[in-house]
Amino acid sequence: MTADDHAPRLATPDDAVEIAGLLHDFNLEFGWPSPSPDVLAPRLRALLGGPATFAYVAGTPIHALALVTLRPNVWVAGSVAVLDEMYVVPSLRDQGIGSAVIEAVLAHAREHDIDLIEINVDEADADTQRFYAQHGFSGIVEETGERAFYFAQEIERG
Amino acid sequence: MTADDHAPRLATPDDAVEIAGLLHDFNLEFGWPSPSPDVLAPRLRALLGGPATFAYVAGTPIHALALVTLRPNVWVAGSVAVLDEMYVVPSLRDQGIGSAVIEAVLAHAREHDIDLIEINVDEADADTQRFYAQHGFSGIVEETGERAFYFAQEIERG
Repeated sequence: MTADDHAPRLATPDDAVEIAGLLHDFNLEFGWPSPSPDVLAPRLRALLGGPATFAYVAGTPIHALALVTLRPNVWVAGSVAVLDEMYVVPSLRDQGIGSAVIEAVLAHAREHDIDLIEINVDEADADTQRFYAQHGFSGIVEETGERAFYFAQEIERG
Repeated sequence: MTADDHAPRLATPDDAVEIAGLLHDFNLEFGWPSPSPDVLAPRLRALLGGPATFAYVAGTPIHALALVTLRPNVWVAGSVAVLDEMYVVPSLRDQGIGSAVIEAVLAHAREHDIDLIEINVDEADADTQRFYAQHGFSGIVEETGERAFYFAQEIERG
């Protein structure tokens, strides 16, 4: 393999099936629940064709991905992005592929009216926190000097 | 005042000027930077007329608000909501107005294809964390039993 084999590129809706497979594998690796790839693939195809989701991928077949969603926010003129998923297949880790993918996401953000990128990271996951700190993210809120905690609630819909 | 004076209602774009004033006051109260209400009001008017932002407000004039933005997410069929701002004017706190507003947001979520609501809370802000816990939010990730930390990076745009 050459470095070019790992060059990140913006995903298209046609990558949806491959990305769905990777997301499914990712969740299985960590023991998290996952809908089947058959559920994820059409959803991803629609999202990647819309204005509020993008992904960067590397490899053929794809072996690394970052999945990002966008929302508006009153404090900024552009969008706020959330890095929802970041994954490199186990056999290709620690080779800088994840770094190249996250830097591609940051470059995309600078060129596409994105003012802030957010990530939610588990408290015990020090390696992941270090990785994101190396790429310019901070877990400390500038105004208060404190950590920010992520709270959430699943909604039971009728 | 009667209880009806505090009944939360869904905000419209015509509420943008009042909400912008409250958001500005909110940031001044906490010593955070704020664009002027003149910047916030037209932005809010556009956001509240679009599909990815909604707000609940209470009072005439408005004395409480919750501002929510929406994004898609591959793991769920509906939207993920972020409670970006929650504010009650100082003179009317501790009367249950904030609780009524957050419960109105949760009821709205159940009726509008929202699968998850997220909030980012400062580590030291125990009162706020307790308030959200009372309304069904958790700072512990179900799959891991750990806290989730919020990381972010401002993007310097060209």
